[in-house]
Parts: sequence; C-alpha cells; structure tokens
Amino acid sequence: MFANSTVLGIDPGLTRCGYAVLHAAGAKVQARALGVIRTPPADALPQRLALLQRELAALIAEHRPDSVAVEQVFFQVNVRTAMSVGQASGLALAEAAAAGCEVVQYTPNQVKDAVAGYGAASKAQVQKMVQVRLGLAAPPSPPDAADAAALALCHLAMAPMRRRVAEARR
Amino acid sequence: MFANSTVLGIDPGLTRCGYAVLHAAGAKVQARALGVIRTPPADALPQRLALLQRELAALIAEHRPDSVAVEQVFFQVNVRTAMSVGQASGLALAEAAAAGCEVVQYTPNQVKDAVAGYGAASKAQVQKMVQVRLGLAAPPSPPDAADAAALALCHLAMAPMRRRVAEARR
Repeated sequence: MFANSTVLGIDPGLTRCGYAVLHAAGAKVQARALGVIRTPPADALPQRLALLQRELAALIAEHRPDSVAVEQVFFQVNVRTAMSVGQASGLALAEAAAAGCEVVQYTPNQVKDAVAGYGAASKAQVQKMVQVRLGLAAPPSPPDAADAAALALCHLAMAPMRRRVAEARR
Repeated sequence: MFANSTVLGIDPGLTRCGYAVLHAAGAKVQARALGVIRTPPADALPQRLALLQRELAALIAEHRPDSVAVEQVFFQVNVRTAMSVGQASGLALAEAAAAGCEVVQYTPNQVKDAVAGYGAASKAQVQKMVQVRLGLAAPPSPPDAADAAALALCHLAMAPMRRRVAEARR
C-alpha cells in the first residue's frame, strides 16, 4: 500500500463496464465510487461507444485518479463479445492516458493472485476479499463493480513493487 | 453517388491507421486527404491509443465529414494484432459518433464487392480501382490509405440504397 493515492479500476465492457474508485491512505482503503456504466443494447455500436467514452471521461474528471488499472482483455469463446470488450478497453486506456494518469493493465489471474492470494481463486472468493478489504456490509454488486474494485486493489498491492523495479532500472 | 457529400474512410490499426477523405459532387469524387496515422511501436499501448484518438479527432474536426466508414473488424490469426485493431476501431467509431457523423461499418468483402465488382477481388485490383476512381497517377500508398479510400468509395456506392431502405422503413 502507498500513502494517499486514488486508483480507478475498470472492468471493460459495452453492456456493463464496471468501475471502482478506491482511495488509499496508508494501509486504509476506502471506496469512493463503485458501480457500472451501462449502454443501451438497442442503440447502434458507435453511439454506445461514444456514450461509454463520455462516461469514462466524466468519471476520470470527477475523481482525478493517480492511476487507472484496466483489465487486460483476452479472446473469449464469444467472438462478438470479445470485440466489444476490446473496443471498450481501448476507450478506457486512451481516456486514462489522455488525462495524464498512470495506466496499467492486469490479467484476471494477476488480480486473483493479488487480491485472494492465488491465481485460481473463484469469483466468489475474490468478491468476499473485496468486501473485507473495503469494509462493506455485502460483496459489491453487480459483479462487474466487484471486479473493478479487485483491479484497483491489485494495483494498490502491486504498485510499491512496480515503483521499486522502476527505480532500480534508473 | 450522392451530391456534395464528404466521407471519411478509416482502416483501423494501431501501428498504421489508414484514412481517406473523399468529397463527392454528383458522380465526381475527389480525394481531399489520404494517408496514414502512425503511433510509435516503442510507446506504451495507452499512450499510443491516446495519440491515435487525438489524430482521429483532429482529422474529423478539420474535414467535418458527413459520414465515416470504418472497416468492420474480425478476428485474425494474430491475436495480439486483432485486439489492437479492435481497440483502434473502437476509438474511430466513438470519435465519429461523438462528432455527430453518420457512422457505418463495412466488411472487407462488402468493400471489394462495391469497389471492384466482386467480393473475392485481390488487393491489387482494389487499389487499381481506387486509383482509377480518384484519377490518381498511381495507386495510393501505403496500402492502408488505399484501403481507407476503398471504404469511403464503398460508402458512396452504398449510401443511395441505404437511404432508400431507411426511407421505405419509415
């Protein structure tokens, strides 16, 4: 953990894009925003992407995160979904970089490993750990918001080592 | 062909993103801009996507196209390339929709069919047709610019029918 840092976690998606703004002060982590951006499936793809882009930009402008952690997208069984997830991740990465944030991608296994202690953890175990770490009464819902919170927690756990590696390289 | 219309064709890509701004006045089609947006492969992915987004927004702001035609992205053999092409296409679709343009996607076969007369046309045949239609001394280079011009020509060829279909539905 590092002092006074705000991290935005993004679980990219077009129908549901999970987000979590976590603020860390020392070892204390607090959720400042937790939710899902939705775009109407009945709308045309370009309009949905433009809406998602506006909402992501507004989220970054409101919370001014130091870092943005985006789930690394891989190909799934459903080709149509994978492409829209890739398009959504592209928007998230571009908006975060344009806003001057540090931008980092983590794989689902890195997130599970950092948050639940091992890469093969179940979704329920990750959600439970997110609940405990954030002191919530129940696991975050919908699951996309919990996944985004897990991404932000993963970044908070990894950041000190990332910084030490970067410093050692200099 | 339809009167006095400006179409921006985009062949999405991260290392090379082809673009072509074509202006149609009646049956006469003129290339107003033709080229490639490049992002440095040595830069980090988020910075490259943010640069591409800025360049696409600048292109749209400068030429104010009525319509933007983007190549429909499918999965290719190279998974890494397909994902970055998907991310680039997401940016193009979102920027065009945000600017209020009509946004249309065409598959490579639709483009070949519309420009060269059949869906199995070779790249060289398509480039030759682009050269002839735009009255250029040589086929546009690099090929990504020619592909973008073919997309815009495809849209100019398809637009009258698309409009009639849309009107019939009303």
